[in-house]
Amino acid sequence: MFSGCQFSLYPMSDNFVEVILPAVKAMGNPEDLRIETDDISTLVVGQPERVFEVVAKAYEAACRAGKHVVLSALFSRGCPGEPDDPLCTPEGPSKGVHEGARQDAGADSATRGAGTSSIATTGVEIDAQFSLYPLGIAEYMTTIASTVRAVKKAGVYDRSKNFCTRLSGDLSAVFAAVERAFDEAARDTGHVVIHLTASKGSPSKKQNSDSM
Amino acid sequence: MFSGCQFSLYPMSDNFVEVILPAVKAMGNPEDLRIETDDISTLVVGQPERVFEVVAKAYEAACRAGKHVVLSALFSRGCPGEPDDPLCTPEGPSKGVHEGARQDAGADSATRGAGTSSIATTGVEIDAQFSLYPLGIAEYMTTIASTVRAVKKAGVYDRSKNFCTRLSGDLSAVFAAVERAFDEAARDTGHVVIHLTASKGSPSKKQNSDSM
Repeated sequence: MFSGCQFSLYPMSDNFVEVILPAVKAMGNPEDLRIETDDISTLVVGQPERVFEVVAKAYEAACRAGKHVVLSALFSRGCPGEPDDPLCTPEGPSKGVHEGARQDAGADSATRGAGTSSIATTGVEIDAQFSLYPLGIAEYMTTIASTVRAVKKAGVYDRSKNFCTRLSGDLSAVFAAVERAFDEAARDTGHVVIHLTASKGSPSKKQNSDSM
Repeated sequence: MFSGCQFSLYPMSDNFVEVILPAVKAMGNPEDLRIETDDISTLVVGQPERVFEVVAKAYEAACRAGKHVVLSALFSRGCPGEPDDPLCTPEGPSKGVHEGARQDAGADSATRGAGTSSIATTGVEIDAQFSLYPLGIAEYMTTIASTVRAVKKAGVYDRSKNFCTRLSGDLSAVFAAVERAFDEAARDTGHVVIHLTASKGSPSKKQNSDSM
C-alpha cells in the first residue's frame, strides 16, 4: 500500500515564510517518513497514523507562530497508481504519539460518546471541513454516509455543507475525527482520499478563535 | 444534476481581507449562480462552465491585488447526495465569456496541440496541481489516466506528483485544462470531483512569477 499526504500551510501574513518553514521543520526528519517540499505543497509518505501525526504537528506549530493560518491537506491511502512502499506498511502495533486518538479510533462508534475526551488537547481551536472519496466502489455514498455518522459522534461535528462536512474544536480532536473517517472508509475500499481544510484565527468567524 | 464549487483564496499578506473580499465581489451577483461565503470557503452553485468562469475571475482579481495568492477549490458535479437544481442544468448553448476555452474544450484531444492558443490570456502566470476523483466506478483509474493524457496536450502540463498532476501557465489556460479534465471525466461517470490548488507569486519558485 502507498499512503501519504500533500499539504500546504497558508499563514495570512507578510511573514508567511517565517511561519511556514519552521512548521515544516517541526515534523523533524524521521526515518519512517519521506518528506519532500516544493513551492506548492509538502509531501509526506508513510504509515497513515504517522502521516496524520506529523501533519497535525506542522499545523499546530504554524498555528502557534501565526495568527490566521489555514492548512489544506490531501490524505491518500491505497492509490493503485502509486508503488508499494515499505514505509507505508505498519510492522507492528502503533507507536504513534497520539495514543488517545489511536485508542479512540479503535473504539466502537456507538461507545464513543463525546469521543475526544481521551485525546490530549493542544489548546488550538480550529474550524475545518473535509471531503471523503472512497474510490473504485459503486456503493461509495453508503461508505460516506456511515463514515460521517461516525464522525458526528466524535464531539467536533459542526454541520454538513455542500460537498463537505464541517468540524470545529481542538486541533487534536479534529485531526482524530478526520483520521477516524479515513480509517473507517478504508474498511470498504482500498483507495481512500480525504481533503481537509483547517482554519485557525479567521476574522470572519464571529467567535474569537484567537484566544489560544 | 447538482454542480458547484467550494473555494478559498489565501493571500499571504497582512492585508488579506482587502484582497479576498473584493475578489469574491468580482464574481458579481449573477442570477444564474448561487454564491454563499462563510469563514472557510465560498460556495458557487451553477452550471459547471459558469462556475469555472467566476472562480477563475475571483482568483484573477485576487492575483492582481495580492503578491503571493493561493486558490484552493473543490469542483463537483453530479453528487447524488445533493438535490437537483435548475441552476446547474444548461438550458441551451454555452453563453460563457471564455469562448476560447469552451471551443478548446469541445475540440478533439488529438487535434489540440498546444491547445491553449485560442484562449484569451490574463497575463497572470500560475503554478497549480489538481486531483481528479471519478466516483462510483470500478474503472476510475482508466478515466484518470485518459483524462491526464488529454490534459498533457493542453500546453500547461508540468509533471505528475504523488496524488496529483502539476500544471503551469497562464491562469486562463490552466483553468481551461482543469475544466476540460472535469468534462472529460464526466463522460465516464456522473459524479466527478476535482480539487485544484493554484499558486501565484510564491517566493519558493525559482522562476520569478511576479512579473505579471
